[in-house]
Amino acid sequence: MENKSTTFLEADFAGMDQRFRASFFNSLGGFKSLTLVGTINGNQQTNLSAVSSVFHIGANPPLIGMIFRPDSVERHTLENIMETRQYTFNHVTEAFYKAAHQTSARYAREVSEFDACGFTPLFSGHIIAPYVQQSPIKIGLELVERIYLKINGTVMILGKIVETMVPEICISADGFVDLELAGTLTVSGLDSYHTTNKLLRLPYAKP
Amino acid sequence: MENKSTTFLEADFAGMDQRFRASFFNSLGGFKSLTLVGTINGNQQTNLSAVSSVFHIGANPPLIGMIFRPDSVERHTLENIMETRQYTFNHVTEAFYKAAHQTSARYAREVSEFDACGFTPLFSGHIIAPYVQQSPIKIGLELVERIYLKINGTVMILGKIVETMVPEICISADGFVDLELAGTLTVSGLDSYHTTNKLLRLPYAKP
Repeated sequence: MENKSTTFLEADFAGMDQRFRASFFNSLGGFKSLTLVGTINGNQQTNLSAVSSVFHIGANPPLIGMIFRPDSVERHTLENIMETRQYTFNHVTEAFYKAAHQTSARYAREVSEFDACGFTPLFSGHIIAPYVQQSPIKIGLELVERIYLKINGTVMILGKIVETMVPEICISADGFVDLELAGTLTVSGLDSYHTTNKLLRLPYAKP
Repeated sequence: MENKSTTFLEADFAGMDQRFRASFFNSLGGFKSLTLVGTINGNQQTNLSAVSSVFHIGANPPLIGMIFRPDSVERHTLENIMETRQYTFNHVTEAFYKAAHQTSARYAREVSEFDACGFTPLFSGHIIAPYVQQSPIKIGLELVERIYLKINGTVMILGKIVETMVPEICISADGFVDLELAGTLTVSGLDSYHTTNKLLRLPYAKP
């Protein structure tokens, strides 16, 4: 895109309005994964939270990371993960992304976002954390490590995948999972939801 | 999507073909950001590497994380970051995603992917690492912390944003950066490239 470009330097960041800054830097890194994180506590209270901070760490063993901001509404999710050491990731589609967004409201501790936002918990029998029945792609995880990032007080959770549920037609012969066929959305910034259009899969690059 | 679902449990993962497993778990976490990472070393040798492991950590200070696999082709990038403590992120559009993918080939140390893949380095004067002139959104970073993840030998790099260049028309009044308008792509798995279609931006959720 040919267009006039705006440059900001570090000295400009401090002068930004707080909400402007949060929205700007949340968008800037690129498109993000969109996941509903399902948890349960020892009193059988379930919790569900929309998260855009999930990232791939490795395939063998299969590891996924997730960032929690210190004062975020996901605090119940983090508490439940620390208590049970289990959680689920559930992809979000166009059919229910508004309900998924609604889980980010600051509900009281005793309210389950499954009930409040209209999701059906599904228990696989392999882990105790609830999946979202409506979700086409479901991932069960066990906590591996909690890393505290001193620089800004965020918490990074590393989890090991222990169960996956994926539509059979979305799994290619080479292992590729066709997220677009599954209807998985992507998110940018704090609140912008997008479907995708595949261009191509490109072959392994050689010099 | 109503469809027959395939369940894999942890015991199934070890039996997967190595390439199948890598592709499966790289796809599974959701859509990812797509970035060209620009670096330079003390001999003025530039390097450019396509990366899908960039994730937002916080806005104040603005921090971004990135994962390096132990044996990846991005080793020159990591070496240069450790040497100069600076690097750039450059968004990728449909106009040049094939050239961006080509940077993932295992070029020799003395080859710059800027030359080999047809990109123009741009030096802002504020940091020494090269930007990609073709890229609509450019981010300059300084290394803050290197974290070694014992669990699988990956390295996590935390960087502080020190410079941003964004098309003026893509910056909303509330700080949101319209990546779709900029033409930024998203990637799934190891090699699948996608444009996006915005559904909606949703308002701040309240119970």
